[in-house]
Amino acid sequence: MPYRAPLNDYRFIFENVVGFSRVAETERFAEATPELVEQILTEAARLSEEVIAPLNWPGDRNPAKLENGVVRTSPGFGDGYKAIAEGGWVGMAANPDHGGMGLPMAVTTAVNEMLSSACLSLQLCPLLSQGQIEALEHHASDELKALYLPKLTSGEWSGTMNLTEPQAGSDVGALRTKAEPQEDGSYRITGQKIYITWGDADFLPNVVHLVLARLPDAPAGTKGISLFLVPKYLPNEAGEPGEQNDLRVVSLEEKMGIHASPTCVMEFDGATGWLVGGPNKGMAAMFTMMNNARLGVGAQGIGVGERAYQHAVAYAMDRVQGKASGSGAIVEHADVRRMLTQMKADLFAARSIALMNAVAIDMAAATGEAGWKARAALLTPITKVFGTETGVQVAHEGVQIHGGMGFVEETGAAQFSRDARITPIYEGTNGIQAMDLVARKMMDGGEAAFSLIDEIQSQAEEARASHEALAQKVWEATEALRETTEWLAEQEMQDRFAGAVPYLYAFARVLGGAAHLRAAQKGDAARGAFAAFYIDRLLPEHRALLAQARAGAKGLYSISLDDLTAA
Amino acid sequence: MPYRAPLNDYRFIFENVVGFSRVAETERFAEATPELVEQILTEAARLSEEVIAPLNWPGDRNPAKLENGVVRTSPGFGDGYKAIAEGGWVGMAANPDHGGMGLPMAVTTAVNEMLSSACLSLQLCPLLSQGQIEALEHHASDELKALYLPKLTSGEWSGTMNLTEPQAGSDVGALRTKAEPQEDGSYRITGQKIYITWGDADFLPNVVHLVLARLPDAPAGTKGISLFLVPKYLPNEAGEPGEQNDLRVVSLEEKMGIHASPTCVMEFDGATGWLVGGPNKGMAAMFTMMNNARLGVGAQGIGVGERAYQHAVAYAMDRVQGKASGSGAIVEHADVRRMLTQMKADLFAARSIALMNAVAIDMAAATGEAGWKARAALLTPITKVFGTETGVQVAHEGVQIHGGMGFVEETGAAQFSRDARITPIYEGTNGIQAMDLVARKMMDGGEAAFSLIDEIQSQAEEARASHEALAQKVWEATEALRETTEWLAEQEMQDRFAGAVPYLYAFARVLGGAAHLRAAQKGDAARGAFAAFYIDRLLPEHRALLAQARAGAKGLYSISLDDLTAA
Repeated sequence: MPYRAPLNDYRFIFENVVGFSRVAETERFAEATPELVEQILTEAARLSEEVIAPLNWPGDRNPAKLENGVVRTSPGFGDGYKAIAEGGWVGMAANPDHGGMGLPMAVTTAVNEMLSSACLSLQLCPLLSQGQIEALEHHASDELKALYLPKLTSGEWSGTMNLTEPQAGSDVGALRTKAEPQEDGSYRITGQKIYITWGDADFLPNVVHLVLARLPDAPAGTKGISLFLVPKYLPNEAGEPGEQNDLRVVSLEEKMGIHASPTCVMEFDGATGWLVGGPNKGMAAMFTMMNNARLGVGAQGIGVGERAYQHAVAYAMDRVQGKASGSGAIVEHADVRRMLTQMKADLFAARSIALMNAVAIDMAAATGEAGWKARAALLTPITKVFGTETGVQVAHEGVQIHGGMGFVEETGAAQFSRDARITPIYEGTNGIQAMDLVARKMMDGGEAAFSLIDEIQSQAEEARASHEALAQKVWEATEALRETTEWLAEQEMQDRFAGAVPYLYAFARVLGGAAHLRAAQKGDAARGAFAAFYIDRLLPEHRALLAQARAGAKGLYSISLDDLTAA
Repeated sequence: MPYRAPLNDYRFIFENVVGFSRVAETERFAEATPELVEQILTEAARLSEEVIAPLNWPGDRNPAKLENGVVRTSPGFGDGYKAIAEGGWVGMAANPDHGGMGLPMAVTTAVNEMLSSACLSLQLCPLLSQGQIEALEHHASDELKALYLPKLTSGEWSGTMNLTEPQAGSDVGALRTKAEPQEDGSYRITGQKIYITWGDADFLPNVVHLVLARLPDAPAGTKGISLFLVPKYLPNEAGEPGEQNDLRVVSLEEKMGIHASPTCVMEFDGATGWLVGGPNKGMAAMFTMMNNARLGVGAQGIGVGERAYQHAVAYAMDRVQGKASGSGAIVEHADVRRMLTQMKADLFAARSIALMNAVAIDMAAATGEAGWKARAALLTPITKVFGTETGVQVAHEGVQIHGGMGFVEETGAAQFSRDARITPIYEGTNGIQAMDLVARKMMDGGEAAFSLIDEIQSQAEEARASHEALAQKVWEATEALRETTEWLAEQEMQDRFAGAVPYLYAFARVLGGAAHLRAAQKGDAARGAFAAFYIDRLLPEHRALLAQARAGAKGLYSISLDDLTAA
């Protein structure tokens, strides 16, 4: 099944839903003219469709393997990676001083979505480099920047992130890897890290690890964590890979999906590294990297979902069964139609939220305004959760539309479902994202949320003239969200946490409603029909979600552990 | 992770929720005394926990394989199957005249759930035999019954169901396999069948295939389908396996889950078979078999979900991360608590619905009353869909609770999710079940539904005395279901179909609410707390579902195929 990049959707959302023109009007992104954006998106679409998409299924069937310490990658992945790097896509958002394109995050997000549709396993490699580039730009010394950023930006070398240890997953503060200062200003890093995505690859001349570790006598917990740059090969005087560092891939995990992405257990055995950011300032650097990575993971969910959708709709138009009208294909059955329409309507909502988030990041970067920063921070966990859950749900329905063929690996539908499954887990589980939303992102008393809610309601007011019924439904749902937000902001943390996930989903449903309403106003009849579907059939879910959000923790803790384990 | 059968839940539901005592009071099931039921459930629990459960994970890691035409099964499966057969579990519901135990369907359903928790892949083998036994009891000649039923009931031989062909999945009427009459009264069967679960196994001395095929000059579509019994080895005069029949396993499917269950492509090359039921009466026989199999598949979903839940709660109690209170384990986090509580509350709801369904089947069999028959028919698609969706959703959340470990196959959490995924697909996809509910099951104008709705409301009235708030919520939800049922019963079929799946979910939510309300009335404080959780937080979903159920087909078909495929 060929993949077709949803370019019309990007164009429409950029222009009509998220107001990308504001970004292009800033000095910082003045070069991102409509012509350039069009050219960038078209080129990324071509690469994704023609070069990367064909690698996806063979990659699942031929996972990355560890052979005598070397990570042997899936067929064609070396060439695919090279095409991504040579197109400049690794450094598309990076600083032009080091060879980057300096593109807005909105454009980067669309490109990342397309590459994820094409091949999630491969796309992870440049995505991690993007995060590392950003962390180094913000926190590394000029010397490290000069040595590493050009190689990372060009994609010649790739970057990884080494956080997790067996006892320290979501609880990063529990990590134990040690860093001992050396006389020459470097550090010796010793410890084991797990879940290191693209920890190594046979097509990469060098891999640069960012490793969280503890200095001697560092305070306990997250306050005693520092970040180190640890390359596989130490650069020689010419800046090329020289002596091998004391680190190695011990094993690869066998996973449910993304088989072609090597997930490494890394052993650092007194490896040489350099401090990035100040001593004990590792968490700040890590958050820089993770914040945009969360948007990237949201885009991954949407990307896998988009491809699963295209796979399913093609099957539904081809498969003749039963007494459907018209062509006789199952796409004529009302229930199949319902599933497909929901899949596409949800993808549009998730994509709009992700791009709204990206525009806020761009505006914050371009203007430095606190309001945009707060908007971006508020939207990030929502994008991550709703993008990834939409990906999982759409891929699930994609399997269902295939019937028995969906459960058979040969069809490819199952792969999308297995691949998408990682996205609600990594880069902070979706539960942790929701806790972030109701805790850190409400330390302003809900100000950022209320500002967005006000904006949606103004938009709904404006839409009444042409779409009264839809506008009213969006207005009311937004008002219900406001009331629950006011209530939440006054609760103890435990009560917020008990309803955090349903609250986040309700917020996403409302944002999706706003995006669809805008599409109905600005788009053709088909956009209006999808908007009506979403607002009439899916938006009503917000009520039950908000009821859950307000139910509090007391009822949960009235059930004891013995009650939970009674059989 | 050991599995513990939820015996207390069965006892509680039998006694307090579904009124099993009515079944035991009938003449037909007079032997099913509380003592016998207790003994049966305890013995099945022991087998499931100690003998079958340990086979599950190794089975996933070592799938069934086809070697030189022989299906080599996973390690220990031969012994596991023998233990099931020797315990009499294959024939537990079968007629005692042929060696069966003649147990009520309620007991059989509980046992099937336990065996599914233990090992879904293996449990499929006896489940298919149970369906075949029932079809033969109702439709086969006395000669065939005498020859085959004792062997099938004892589990010495197993049974399969051969429906699907590549062009004929959900649309059974499109099948092409031919049956040519022979002078001796037998038939020659020629054709290819796919998705034949346990089509063969190295531990079975004989496999009996029931095959749907067309007689010469049979009418087109489902009216021209006949059912044939086609054994792998033709019985000799002693009734033992004799000459090999002209059929073979061509290949096994590679699937997303249930790896240890061989899914065969079968080739019948002029194989000898015998007619079961009259010529062109195959669909009736097939429906006999499929109807109870749907309840069985619902129980499978619940069974896999139960085990996934147990796996997740054990992990959550063991895994220390972050600053949770108490033990420091993640089970103390409010969001993990919320997920676990929902999983257990939904499993209780699904189990209650399945057992309510089984009791209706038993009462129909014992009394012959049309009301019980209609009740059983109404509940069957609901049990199938809600049981399987609960299984998938609980297994999904189980992976999520494991975090990164959930995505790694080593933990076992992923297997439950992959295994559960088949259950919403086979035995009629969940979309087809929902269409059955709003079409065939409403040919009575909704009478069976209204009778159940009346009963739930009477129960809610009665519960007001002790649980006013919960009772009121259940009453109101039931009233909303009644209104939508009245509305649906008057619509064109296409409008019913457009809302069939959301309608079915709403019905299930209400039935679950009724079961939990009963549990609050009759059970301890913990049952009351789960009931409050379900009724306060999950039952409200019925509103959005009913809104979807009533949205009709028009909006769906206003979106063209071009709109669906626009990128």
